[in-house]
Amino acid sequence: MNISAEIICVGTELLLGEILNSNAQYLAQQLAQLGIPHFYQTVVGDNSERLQKVLAIAAGRSNLIITTGGLGPTPDDLTTAAIADFFATPLVERPELWADIQRKFAYTGQKITENNRKQALLPEGADTLPNPVGSAPGMIWQPRPTLLILTFPGVPFELHAMWEATVPDLLRSRGWLEAIFHSRELLYFGISESALSERVNHLFNLSNPTVAPYASYGQARLRITARASTIAEALELIAPIEAEILQLTGEHCFGKDDDTLASVAGQYLRQHNQTLAVAESCTGGWLGEMLTEIPGSSDYFLGGIISYSNSVKIEQLGVSAADLAEQGAVSETVAIQMARGVKQKLQSDWGISITGIAGPDGGSETKPVGLVYIGIANPDGEVRAIKHQFSPSRGRNWVRRMSVYSALNHLRKSFVMIG
Amino acid sequence: MNISAEIICVGTELLLGEILNSNAQYLAQQLAQLGIPHFYQTVVGDNSERLQKVLAIAAGRSNLIITTGGLGPTPDDLTTAAIADFFATPLVERPELWADIQRKFAYTGQKITENNRKQALLPEGADTLPNPVGSAPGMIWQPRPTLLILTFPGVPFELHAMWEATVPDLLRSRGWLEAIFHSRELLYFGISESALSERVNHLFNLSNPTVAPYASYGQARLRITARASTIAEALELIAPIEAEILQLTGEHCFGKDDDTLASVAGQYLRQHNQTLAVAESCTGGWLGEMLTEIPGSSDYFLGGIISYSNSVKIEQLGVSAADLAEQGAVSETVAIQMARGVKQKLQSDWGISITGIAGPDGGSETKPVGLVYIGIANPDGEVRAIKHQFSPSRGRNWVRRMSVYSALNHLRKSFVMIG
Repeated sequence: MNISAEIICVGTELLLGEILNSNAQYLAQQLAQLGIPHFYQTVVGDNSERLQKVLAIAAGRSNLIITTGGLGPTPDDLTTAAIADFFATPLVERPELWADIQRKFAYTGQKITENNRKQALLPEGADTLPNPVGSAPGMIWQPRPTLLILTFPGVPFELHAMWEATVPDLLRSRGWLEAIFHSRELLYFGISESALSERVNHLFNLSNPTVAPYASYGQARLRITARASTIAEALELIAPIEAEILQLTGEHCFGKDDDTLASVAGQYLRQHNQTLAVAESCTGGWLGEMLTEIPGSSDYFLGGIISYSNSVKIEQLGVSAADLAEQGAVSETVAIQMARGVKQKLQSDWGISITGIAGPDGGSETKPVGLVYIGIANPDGEVRAIKHQFSPSRGRNWVRRMSVYSALNHLRKSFVMIG
Repeated sequence: MNISAEIICVGTELLLGEILNSNAQYLAQQLAQLGIPHFYQTVVGDNSERLQKVLAIAAGRSNLIITTGGLGPTPDDLTTAAIADFFATPLVERPELWADIQRKFAYTGQKITENNRKQALLPEGADTLPNPVGSAPGMIWQPRPTLLILTFPGVPFELHAMWEATVPDLLRSRGWLEAIFHSRELLYFGISESALSERVNHLFNLSNPTVAPYASYGQARLRITARASTIAEALELIAPIEAEILQLTGEHCFGKDDDTLASVAGQYLRQHNQTLAVAESCTGGWLGEMLTEIPGSSDYFLGGIISYSNSVKIEQLGVSAADLAEQGAVSETVAIQMARGVKQKLQSDWGISITGIAGPDGGSETKPVGLVYIGIANPDGEVRAIKHQFSPSRGRNWVRRMSVYSALNHLRKSFVMIG
């Protein structure tokens, strides 16, 4: 059977431009990885009549329809009912779904309403597409022999969890995945996507594996994707290309696949049995937040001081009031004293500090918005500060995010230098 | 004439999930602002046959078709030719466009190719949609009396520049802009979308203004949207509905439109001329991060202690080692001591603490994953702790995010109680 998928995203908020359709991108990526072609994506509002018109078009040209959105408990969540209507099939309450919804509400102590009961309805003959992380399950339904429908909620992390838990295995068990696609992602910080692409330009024309560049939030990625019959076979195709890319770009590559700058820095700390403390000014705790996003980070992260005001810098971190007055809070001197101060105070092996001008106000001729100093105190008692000038045009949170990424990357590179 | 627009985004890179469809969001926002309804968005690849099928569907249900992508010089840029084909109209070279393309290339010194000449072709009878910032112009074409087609390139900043320079005036001059849409959003925390909806269920059937519920990341929103000829008139339509909703749900409403929990709490602190310090365990600095996302937060936020390890809780916050050993780090006692400790240490008016079990490990029978205590020390020297049990099934970061939101909401409600 020639599979052709189609994505239908349901939600008036998409038609009003209130949210970016990241679900369509996610599904497109997943389908591409599984080797399932799809030729159309449609967005339609929370309107049963129009959704049914879109279903009619999709059912006439595709045999795998994937919907997102409209599975919630409110009156404008009508995807399940519209699909059942279109195929003239009655909705049936599933006792196990209703029990599950009641159980989840009981656990958190929130009040359950009659609206929630709607989420236990599925068309006769449909199977549940389990939702491991939310109250709205989806459906797996074959209303006609040559048509499979999968429905998902619009909340991205629920969509992701449901897709990963069920769909690849489902399609494999139906024999729809003749080949598998397996990818290796190489992750970069401190090099632009275009500079990275230029170094490996000659690999972008390969057909198996393919190599493609991506960028997001100041990080760049190269994805190597192989088509093969097993993962082991795919990895064999990927290995020589990965080695070649690393030879050309390795000094900027901080990790692969699910790594993050925080997880990689954390792995180094754990390997060396060393601890870290942070002193944050303009980032206000974001560095600590990213470090503690990693389960088990308490093995190496002790904590820190958010020294947003100068008084906290002086009294908690021992920064010199005279230096603050003369050099300013955003200076090499203060960054160094903050890093040394938090290391001493929390008795950690490493101390990292961030002080900068995130904007939009507070910049000057000599210290423009985007100027950030990152201090690093290492276990040998050495302290240094690195000056950064981030682009102010991308806004306050861009400067803050780049500051945190850079701090984690400096820590990581300190370990690479140690070897 | 009843206008109904439709967006068609052309590009195989969208079907492969390589880029987010930000153009659809941009166009949706522009149409909403102009009060032009649109009910469908379609994504299709760089394929003339499929694009023409999509055009057939769109021309049958809409009278304003807006396309993005496929206007470039490469062989897979085929939007203009496909549209001309579909309406059986010949393409004609426009000498002024060809001259313009040559001039732009001469200016940048890039080499012009025969491919570029394709960009000077438009269907017979079409007008140019000028591109002030790139080489690919679009078209303004009425192939039938009741159908207007506008084409744009896929590069976002070219699309934006072209839209703003031409489209609002074009539609106004045709008498298509009869009304504007204006919205008010009411923001909620601590009540589920379904419970909120149930209270205002009777308003969901209104036609002008309309009321609709939304939810994201544990917060819920109600949007009131009015159609009117001026913003002032829209606000008059919105006011009585807003008042009615607030009467029914006001105790859970924390703000409106662009407010956030952090910005609202910050406004209260600024109004009362009071300062805040935070002590964070499982959130690792996220509360400080959210507070400092707000420009000007240094007026009231002093900083904090990230007390991820017990040693930092004891030494920096003065938490009793005996209580830590007996009650555990996640306890009412420790939350209270953390909040009081950070308030004293940083000499702030308010102290807020968060200590909890974010998971996935570390839970027990009596203290399951998702258990979080939030401590609040107020300017009068009173300290209390509130116990929360968040759903562990949504993962570590959900528990952490809900902890931060709840902390900000408790602070906000403390001010509401003060009045």
